[in-house]
Amino acid sequence: MRNIKLVIEYDGTNFYGWQVQNRKQRTENRRQRIKSREQNKCRTVQGIIEEALRKILQEKVKIIGSGRTDSGTHAKAQVANFKTDSKLNCENLIRALNASLPSDIRIKEVKDVKLSFNARFKAKSKKYRYYIFNAPYQSPFFRFFSLHVSYLLDIEKMRKACRYLIGTHNFKSFQKKDKIERNSVRTIKKIKITKKGKLIFIDIESEGFLYNMARNITGTLLEVGRNKIKPCDIRSIIRAKDRKRIGATVPAKGLHLMEVKYR
Amino acid sequence: MRNIKLVIEYDGTNFYGWQVQNRKQRTENRRQRIKSREQNKCRTVQGIIEEALRKILQEKVKIIGSGRTDSGTHAKAQVANFKTDSKLNCENLIRALNASLPSDIRIKEVKDVKLSFNARFKAKSKKYRYYIFNAPYQSPFFRFFSLHVSYLLDIEKMRKACRYLIGTHNFKSFQKKDKIERNSVRTIKKIKITKKGKLIFIDIESEGFLYNMARNITGTLLEVGRNKIKPCDIRSIIRAKDRKRIGATVPAKGLHLMEVKYR
Repeated sequence: MRNIKLVIEYDGTNFYGWQVQNRKQRTENRRQRIKSREQNKCRTVQGIIEEALRKILQEKVKIIGSGRTDSGTHAKAQVANFKTDSKLNCENLIRALNASLPSDIRIKEVKDVKLSFNARFKAKSKKYRYYIFNAPYQSPFFRFFSLHVSYLLDIEKMRKACRYLIGTHNFKSFQKKDKIERNSVRTIKKIKITKKGKLIFIDIESEGFLYNMARNITGTLLEVGRNKIKPCDIRSIIRAKDRKRIGATVPAKGLHLMEVKYR
Repeated sequence: MRNIKLVIEYDGTNFYGWQVQNRKQRTENRRQRIKSREQNKCRTVQGIIEEALRKILQEKVKIIGSGRTDSGTHAKAQVANFKTDSKLNCENLIRALNASLPSDIRIKEVKDVKLSFNARFKAKSKKYRYYIFNAPYQSPFFRFFSLHVSYLLDIEKMRKACRYLIGTHNFKSFQKKDKIERNSVRTIKKIKITKKGKLIFIDIESEGFLYNMARNITGTLLEVGRNKIKPCDIRSIIRAKDRKRIGATVPAKGLHLMEVKYR
């Protein structure tokens, strides 16, 4: 038995997220979906890779991702693993995978790892980057990869606000309303805001993310950047444990999973 | 009568090039077109902007572009101009245009210019950038914007080859076979090759480009980069005035019109 680790890059635009969905989720989601999406019915990254592996290895495999990504969210380096009895070497496997996968998914790395490795449970921290295109008009080239913000952002204030978010807190205020997890305490290791031309990157590294947490933090930082929330208000927002206190959830298309770190 | 200059950015992926086509071209092209393109029948950047202007200004206008771009070629700053009797100020016009244009075209600038300005005939030089993604596998994020090259490129040799291309030469060897212009003498002002991570940019600034010239120069430089052509061979290739001597025409999707300079 082998345990194989994959590092995966994908353009999330035409995916219904990472995870293969069960029938109940599918039915619910189908109702909400717009017509163009309908054509990509439940096209998930996990599902497409599992299908490619099934054809290449001639066996049914189940891959374990480091975590789900939302519909429309991108990944520069998602990590997954799967167990197999196949003898195919890694070099041939990566070649076969990339030859059979659609062009919006690419496997960057295939590696034999210890049997105990689990892409989800052994993850130490994850880095997400949110892309903001800050200019009067959105660029055609970033329209699927960034949020367009036309008003001027006060980046210094946003940076000040970050200081209150870093560390171990109960992030209940930043959690999706209908997806409450019992334990909403998480540890943010780093938040960095960088400006590069018209692009602003918000990098968040955390030991774990609640549902929508990265997108809700970004939405709140944007409110700080446009002077609707004071940087020091973040403290009371965290304490309030109330979703209503924060900014809007920004769209998934600006979010990129950049790295998953392991012990 | 006013003369208005537009600076336009577009993702060329879903366009059949810049120029509105006449019926004969349309019929020819239609035969070659694949099914997915069929749905975007002759969707040209010029056509879409003219249609938007017609609705906004309530008059039929014809815009003059600095030059055609091929089907699939992108532009960061294409320039065009048109004459109108409208009194709408530039600020409102740019807002109205961007509100009515599809998201793959954005107008970056609208400006009143002298009546004598002509985006095509007054152009002094143009800058094109060709994007090469040089890594074992193409990135999903650059798949519509770059050529994927998996073999290692000798950039120093490519730079050496550029020296023979700069200056005034008869570029007949680099011209599309079936589109011979009487005068194929052009002046290349600058060629620069830059590596930025896995991306390689080939910047070409010329006083004019023959049909497919930028893509044929790039294809030939790639042959130099993989040691199929020696840098000094470029001299005899130019002298030969023979299309067969050079590398393949690289795909249009890697080509970006970066700037048009005026006197």
